[in-house]
Amino acid sequence: MIRFFRVKKRHEVVAEFQKFTAVSEEQVSLWDGLGRVLSRAVHALEDLPSFVRATMDGFAVQARDTFGASEGHPALLRLVGEVRMGEPARRAIGASEAMRVATGGMLPEGADAVVMVEHAELLDSETLEVYRSVAPWENVVRPGEDVAAGQEVLPAGWALRPQDLGLLAALGRTSLWVHRRPRIAVLSTGDEVLPVDREPSPGQVRDVNGVAVSSWVAKEGGIPIPMGIIPDSPEQLSNSFRDALAIADGLMVSGGSSVGTRDFLMEVIEGLEGAEIMAHGIAVRPGKPTVVARVGDKPLLGLPGHPVSALVILHLLGRPLLDRLCGRVYPNRPRPFKARLTRNLASAQGREDYVRVVLEERQGELWARPLVGSSGLIGNLSRADGLVRIDSLCEGIYSGEWVEVESFP
Amino acid sequence: MIRFFRVKKRHEVVAEFQKFTAVSEEQVSLWDGLGRVLSRAVHALEDLPSFVRATMDGFAVQARDTFGASEGHPALLRLVGEVRMGEPARRAIGASEAMRVATGGMLPEGADAVVMVEHAELLDSETLEVYRSVAPWENVVRPGEDVAAGQEVLPAGWALRPQDLGLLAALGRTSLWVHRRPRIAVLSTGDEVLPVDREPSPGQVRDVNGVAVSSWVAKEGGIPIPMGIIPDSPEQLSNSFRDALAIADGLMVSGGSSVGTRDFLMEVIEGLEGAEIMAHGIAVRPGKPTVVARVGDKPLLGLPGHPVSALVILHLLGRPLLDRLCGRVYPNRPRPFKARLTRNLASAQGREDYVRVVLEERQGELWARPLVGSSGLIGNLSRADGLVRIDSLCEGIYSGEWVEVESFP
Repeated sequence: MIRFFRVKKRHEVVAEFQKFTAVSEEQVSLWDGLGRVLSRAVHALEDLPSFVRATMDGFAVQARDTFGASEGHPALLRLVGEVRMGEPARRAIGASEAMRVATGGMLPEGADAVVMVEHAELLDSETLEVYRSVAPWENVVRPGEDVAAGQEVLPAGWALRPQDLGLLAALGRTSLWVHRRPRIAVLSTGDEVLPVDREPSPGQVRDVNGVAVSSWVAKEGGIPIPMGIIPDSPEQLSNSFRDALAIADGLMVSGGSSVGTRDFLMEVIEGLEGAEIMAHGIAVRPGKPTVVARVGDKPLLGLPGHPVSALVILHLLGRPLLDRLCGRVYPNRPRPFKARLTRNLASAQGREDYVRVVLEERQGELWARPLVGSSGLIGNLSRADGLVRIDSLCEGIYSGEWVEVESFP
Repeated sequence: MIRFFRVKKRHEVVAEFQKFTAVSEEQVSLWDGLGRVLSRAVHALEDLPSFVRATMDGFAVQARDTFGASEGHPALLRLVGEVRMGEPARRAIGASEAMRVATGGMLPEGADAVVMVEHAELLDSETLEVYRSVAPWENVVRPGEDVAAGQEVLPAGWALRPQDLGLLAALGRTSLWVHRRPRIAVLSTGDEVLPVDREPSPGQVRDVNGVAVSSWVAKEGGIPIPMGIIPDSPEQLSNSFRDALAIADGLMVSGGSSVGTRDFLMEVIEGLEGAEIMAHGIAVRPGKPTVVARVGDKPLLGLPGHPVSALVILHLLGRPLLDRLCGRVYPNRPRPFKARLTRNLASAQGREDYVRVVLEERQGELWARPLVGSSGLIGNLSRADGLVRIDSLCEGIYSGEWVEVESFP
């Protein structure tokens, strides 16, 4: 029996990923937090700063003592000491008094502003001339002004960057609740596919996708479990899928994109307990022969065997799928950018086309040169700087037009 | 003695990084190659593909037998078998013969094209009707057409992405020469700075930069060596710097941005053997009080104590510095993108301003809302989606203007 593709649109498939839930949570040290995804929102347990803090080097004063001060009519204040870093001042200041303070220092009781060191001059060890007025709370930051106790500082689903870890450090959160990194089993299929360290005979090729898919999974925050190459036998595929799904949170299998193997791949998947085919074929090029299934509560992504197609599908479907499993609502990913096409690009209506492009700078403008040729060409793989999408309603884009380019992968 | 800033422009400092050399190389497994930087160019030792390969499911033929074929006048060929995946065909084909082949299969001797399965029909087990002509080498890829033996496939200095590892897998390169990940010692200074797991007393703050700088180093491909907090004592700083530079390939120290501590920080650096101050102050905001030095052949980057300023400087100077140490000539980083400013931004001439922005989508257009306020505000840190640069010759940018936004950090 020849099965025909039950082709779905990309956004339809992505919408179905809602059926999957994020993997469980675990606690990690703040120092291990880079790239991890918060499983719980973080609220501040304290004010930041926790004291009135100088934001400039200068003199802590009562602002009203400086009102009207100018070069011609400086305010005269009495210097009563210095605030040491990391300690409260030894005494409060009163009217017409000033105390030396450095950036980050704690203002003494009674002070409500800082006069910058450039706007004052010491006449003798006790007498300070101030040449500019400061408003109350000028050059200081008040308790809770940065972060107020109780405030949500980071939402659940946030992918942690260095600056986020800095913020959590400021709040003393040395331990974080994050989602586990989902374990993704990676399988390659095909009688012609050989381990990378073996010398191919005529007709054989090395397993490109094993390494490419595994490292892609690692890059996107999962833990790849490379499970090798399975020959095109329904029984062996079925056993391997069962083994993989028993130990992993999801399965990515590549290959089986020719009509015959695709057919028995579908039968193998349908034969797994609790399996539901979510899509068999996606209306995108390259990558049409993609299979998306659910086995119990775990996803199975059947990638095309062609490495370029496989990576495009990982970009289009793998990312939202891993976002879902990782609990990643705020991935903090780079945005697409614009470039001009160097040549006309035709496209068939009814499917999205993703064209790999190389970027070139010409007279300060960014141009995107399409890489054409078979999606099976591996040499092209690493030449591409980005992907340009041609909408399914669009018949093509003209040379010179501005297009959006996404980083790839 | 009060030292004045010997302020340099950013590009002047970056140009000086040429004085540093990349760290030594090591061999890693292909499976550990993600994000690593090639220390030697990779050349193909063999052709890819290594045999004439079908790029479509169909029938291997001699193209000339199909010339002139159409629906009305199909070409009649004799089917003489099937190519099994991963094996050479059992026999050659001659004139008017065809052999079934799947995508990725090896063409039999004598064949020079593939007729797609959709353009042919089997009349009986031996007789094939072909409805379209194919040109020689249509629907196949020839040996070396993808990658030719001897060709440079990736240059030295290339940061490896999943697709690059796939390409290396195709070529059987299971072991890669890459640069070591440079070890970067990370120190914080300041009498007011407290380890993250301690409860601050009035006037004290937790060590934000220790975690933020270390995780930034890891993100950019270095190995951070967190060395804790050093009090503001010239002797302790001097000892710590010496210890750090003995075990690491570079040192990043944050803090000491107020005038007094900055002064003795400079003295401490100048007191190190083989030290040369490359810049004392950078004409950017935030981040002016930055120190760049060379101690022997190792870099020392003195970051501002304010976390936001420290991260902006890491973005502007830390990245090119780590690129240099990592030997990274092709970092494969995301490009800047465009957005419209939500409000006017004024800027002083003579220095570059870097304004943190939050991105908002309005009617399909991307807008950048500047985050204003003290660079010491930590809450702002993780709110920023990007950085907008205002040129040193520019007095400001008007609301609604399109600006370039860089991902931050």
